[in-house]
Amino acid sequence: MAELAERIRVIAFDVFGTVVDWHGSVARAVAAMDLGVDPAAFALAWRAGYQPAMAQVMESGEWIILDHLHRRILDRVLDDFGLGDLAPAERRHLNRVWHRLDPWPDSVEGMTRLKSRYLICSLSNGNIGLLAEMAKNAGLPWDCILSAENFMRYKPHPDTYLGVAKTFALEPAQVMLAAAHHGDLEAARNCGLQTANIERPYEYGRDAPKNVAPREANTLHASSIVHLARQLDC
Amino acid sequence: MAELAERIRVIAFDVFGTVVDWHGSVARAVAAMDLGVDPAAFALAWRAGYQPAMAQVMESGEWIILDHLHRRILDRVLDDFGLGDLAPAERRHLNRVWHRLDPWPDSVEGMTRLKSRYLICSLSNGNIGLLAEMAKNAGLPWDCILSAENFMRYKPHPDTYLGVAKTFALEPAQVMLAAAHHGDLEAARNCGLQTANIERPYEYGRDAPKNVAPREANTLHASSIVHLARQLDC
Repeated sequence: MAELAERIRVIAFDVFGTVVDWHGSVARAVAAMDLGVDPAAFALAWRAGYQPAMAQVMESGEWIILDHLHRRILDRVLDDFGLGDLAPAERRHLNRVWHRLDPWPDSVEGMTRLKSRYLICSLSNGNIGLLAEMAKNAGLPWDCILSAENFMRYKPHPDTYLGVAKTFALEPAQVMLAAAHHGDLEAARNCGLQTANIERPYEYGRDAPKNVAPREANTLHASSIVHLARQLDC
Repeated sequence: MAELAERIRVIAFDVFGTVVDWHGSVARAVAAMDLGVDPAAFALAWRAGYQPAMAQVMESGEWIILDHLHRRILDRVLDDFGLGDLAPAERRHLNRVWHRLDPWPDSVEGMTRLKSRYLICSLSNGNIGLLAEMAKNAGLPWDCILSAENFMRYKPHPDTYLGVAKTFALEPAQVMLAAAHHGDLEAARNCGLQTANIERPYEYGRDAPKNVAPREANTLHASSIVHLARQLDC
């Protein structure tokens, strides 16, 4: 482990689900607006539009930031939930909930500990403005915010993972991706990055626990970001 | 002033000369390497290659990050100073001095105060990796690092100033550029940004004080970043 800890120079984090609790945060914001819908179901429906919307962008070849995709999906989900008459100002307010997501309880402490030894950055499909406002709001201590927007490609495109290494003039094996999603970890691994799987059993809510069993292919497996820090002697 | 302080949402900082003392830092690094040259003259010669190198990139249409331009200029300056036989490892070490520049004495305090009210970001011709390592080394408390690299254009290209506003979905007049250089401030002003001129009389060393008299066209004029914070009630 000491050799691994020496080799790594940068830890890049997936953000939605890994660092912040999108499901709980979106559900709370929806509940606070008193829209008369099931907040948890609304959050899930909104997020369900995320992967298809990004896939469409990647196919089209035209770059669109996540804020704009979130708004397109929101407009459709509002219709589906019978809220087609919600005013534009309220739609804008709701769409910005993704700028105000709350971190998991261990995130800030774990990141702060890792930051004492490594350069820590985001590698998220969220746009730069979204990530910067989220960090300011939640106290996320990034050394650097990197986004799909930097590379004009959404994860899991290799340009994003290799882009982190290139940004810091490192070999891919000197960069670790920390993420709660196997597709993200696998794509990073295929680019030669180290990977740390962070358990986030309640990403989709307390009622829908995820299977968070370790998979051997990852370099490290951690129950939290603090646990990852401990494994890397931070 | 209260109205201005309310309107601004983001303060973007020029970095080399405005936030950090490139001349003193490079001269100290050169002196520490005991190369037998005049450290201050070496620093000035290196920096003198900066504007022409960037102008060349902008003309060529091919994007090259500042780390690589610094290295090209360094190789030439070493020849000019009779140090053509310096080893590659020493050249790499020397080139990375730009990642380790020291802040002016007021920078960290002033930025920290401004950060309590505004989103603060860099807008520098330095590449993202350089700026992130500099921030980590010098304790610069950026909310977000933005670079010419984000926009694939060097300042004073309008895409860089307008790019800050676009990144945060703001009007140009909601963004302020803080800088010590009139060309930078003028270009930002022409894009509709607010401007704050920061006095840095010793940017080129104690022996070559700059004229730092205020120019009326700027929104604000400050003797330091702390003074700027005070003017904006931070």
